[in-house]
Amino acid sequence: LQNRPPITEKREREREREREEKREGEGEGEGEGEEEQVVNPWTVSAKGGGKIDYDKLIDQFGCQRIDQSLVDRIHRLTSRTPHVFLRRGVFFAHRPLSRCLLDLNEILDAHERGEKFYLYTGRGPSSEALHLGHLIPFMFTKYLQEAFKVPLVIQLTDDEKCMWKDLTVEESQRLARENAKDIIACGFDVTRTFIFSDFDYVGGAFYKNMVKVGKCVTYNKAVGIFGFTGEDHIGKISFPPVQAVPSFPSSFPHLFGGQDNLRCLIPCAIDQDPYFRMTRDVAPRIGYQKPALIESSFFPAMQGENAKMSASDPNSAIYVTDSAKEIKNKINRYAFSGGQDSIEKHRELGANLEVDIPFKYLSFFLDDDAKLEEIRKEYGAGRMLTGEVKQLLIQVLTELVERHRRARAAVTDEVSFWG
Amino acid sequence: LQNRPPITEKREREREREREEKREGEGEGEGEGEEEQVVNPWTVSAKGGGKIDYDKLIDQFGCQRIDQSLVDRIHRLTSRTPHVFLRRGVFFAHRPLSRCLLDLNEILDAHERGEKFYLYTGRGPSSEALHLGHLIPFMFTKYLQEAFKVPLVIQLTDDEKCMWKDLTVEESQRLARENAKDIIACGFDVTRTFIFSDFDYVGGAFYKNMVKVGKCVTYNKAVGIFGFTGEDHIGKISFPPVQAVPSFPSSFPHLFGGQDNLRCLIPCAIDQDPYFRMTRDVAPRIGYQKPALIESSFFPAMQGENAKMSASDPNSAIYVTDSAKEIKNKINRYAFSGGQDSIEKHRELGANLEVDIPFKYLSFFLDDDAKLEEIRKEYGAGRMLTGEVKQLLIQVLTELVERHRRARAAVTDEVSFWG
Repeated sequence: LQNRPPITEKREREREREREEKREGEGEGEGEGEEEQVVNPWTVSAKGGGKIDYDKLIDQFGCQRIDQSLVDRIHRLTSRTPHVFLRRGVFFAHRPLSRCLLDLNEILDAHERGEKFYLYTGRGPSSEALHLGHLIPFMFTKYLQEAFKVPLVIQLTDDEKCMWKDLTVEESQRLARENAKDIIACGFDVTRTFIFSDFDYVGGAFYKNMVKVGKCVTYNKAVGIFGFTGEDHIGKISFPPVQAVPSFPSSFPHLFGGQDNLRCLIPCAIDQDPYFRMTRDVAPRIGYQKPALIESSFFPAMQGENAKMSASDPNSAIYVTDSAKEIKNKINRYAFSGGQDSIEKHRELGANLEVDIPFKYLSFFLDDDAKLEEIRKEYGAGRMLTGEVKQLLIQVLTELVERHRRARAAVTDEVSFWG
Repeated sequence: LQNRPPITEKREREREREREEKREGEGEGEGEGEEEQVVNPWTVSAKGGGKIDYDKLIDQFGCQRIDQSLVDRIHRLTSRTPHVFLRRGVFFAHRPLSRCLLDLNEILDAHERGEKFYLYTGRGPSSEALHLGHLIPFMFTKYLQEAFKVPLVIQLTDDEKCMWKDLTVEESQRLARENAKDIIACGFDVTRTFIFSDFDYVGGAFYKNMVKVGKCVTYNKAVGIFGFTGEDHIGKISFPPVQAVPSFPSSFPHLFGGQDNLRCLIPCAIDQDPYFRMTRDVAPRIGYQKPALIESSFFPAMQGENAKMSASDPNSAIYVTDSAKEIKNKINRYAFSGGQDSIEKHRELGANLEVDIPFKYLSFFLDDDAKLEEIRKEYGAGRMLTGEVKQLLIQVLTELVERHRRARAAVTDEVSFWG
């Protein structure tokens, strides 16, 4: 990717248009014939209830795979081992930076020249307690902040959840405050981090940018990107600019006053891509830099990649509020195993690592590469049993959750952003 | 109207729905056959280029005529002569207050019981200088504020004009500041008046109310009310809640903190009715009082009721920046006369007061009822000539504009809201 000929801005926009027309065409066909894969900020569902096809998603969205050379470059630039989520391909896709079609390398080029960027991530506060999947963007963002020593803004979209989940304003704000404590517990550099809720922060320069973005997106275009229908309320239709504008440093005059060309890098799950596809399309038209993205795949449910993590089924996920006993029980009872039905068969065929949840979870959270390789080999060959892998996972997750609990307990109302 | 039997909230909503379906049905027929009357915040055009049919508008919008008994009641309650705009039917329609279908009388009942209300009016700052038509809602609001001694909020929708007129944020804000000086020059009670621009004030409690309103209005419903199309940008679609929420006292915690049941009365031109039809529909669903409205007809252009006041034709209107000489020239040369072609014919037939602009303008701005009656009689009978009526109008408007100019000159950047 790095060596292909430069592609002009015009050509890039043509390509984006072609992709969008394709997406719109696909949207029209929904509900007819076989159920297609749907990934947007509100729905993630695989074709025919199977696994998400990430290659198809990359093609459809028009983002790019993160290859080994990019991981190596991050390694060199930051002089530290790349985060486990990078090494294991959890963060697997990116969107190139700036007006010409270069890739994430450009932000690294700029970094080498001493030009700073800032990070932007966020969360829609719809539940009381976070599960492990919710922590992934924050854990990775923390790594990026430490590695590059850059400022970070974290948006809590309490307005979004108030509108989509039909929560009251007060309940959305309460969840935002509770979630903020969990986010702060991830251990960001407090001198470089600004965490805000939309209900608190929308206004001033931020609102001006919302209006600038809103002017550039027709309703038809928004329908093409987000799939709105006529029965959706206008609150939803007015929301995309709210999530777009933290990509622009001028939305934060008290943080970045005068640094209007500061670049922005957004670590997020790939279902948030539609917001930033829109943002990247609009940015040059209002005189701003396009944000770059680094996007993660989805964290699987306990019952396997085809299942959903659901708040109504507490056994579908490990929550940061789970006790050591709950973690042990959940993993032992519910973590979908790729091991064989009998020990004899397992010794003969080995575990199917493609579907094995204990192994998947370890690949997210076990930092020790040599150990993971050993498990891959031994478990895959049937020399290691599911029970042993689960034991290790219980140990890793219990430590992670215990560490999180201690950190969260140290977060008081006073140290939180709203203090 | 006052004595008809009470109508329940449910029945009122059914009626509003019926009217809306009718409006939607009419909208669909647009462009087919004869051109219908269109009145909304962006377009005011009469059927076949004729005059606006206000009776039809009242029926279509579902508002009510202000009758003499209501004017008399305002007279009694305020112990002062009702404003010339009330006496002459410039403010001619109203929307009843609160959840049950009572009329403006209810706000007066409440006033008699000692319950306060507040006034809300505004302006979209799209032009540098205001013309006389722009001053009408402010002159009338000033009268209401003085008569009832109530607080007033004035919204400058610089965000709206940025989106509809494609002005930059900065230019919209500059126009808002300039227009604010003209509004302040109308002489409101500064201890009871809050004037704000959306770009400055949107946020906090105001934004929370925007989200609450947005949740209650589907895109289809907004299309029915405002006539949006798929090619309209989402900035426009997200605007109606911005104009709706100053109707709720909780949008101004620093003014009305804790007085969440304070009623709101909105003096405005009738083309703004769609915003408040929406607002009144939403209010009870989010636990708020419906605002009451008192609505004016349109101020005619110099060339007559069928012509348009247009910024591109300075002779179509008298501006508050016009010199005495310009006023004299404009009226003498361009004010459409209902007088006859020859003096002989005029003496015989008299002037057609229905179309005569000098007489219309005097009926807006000449406070002396006896004098206006005399002109109606003498000019209508042909004993007075157009030139004489124009002379009087020139005198009245020159004084009005000169008074405005002096008041505006006394408004400094410091006394304005943005100081």
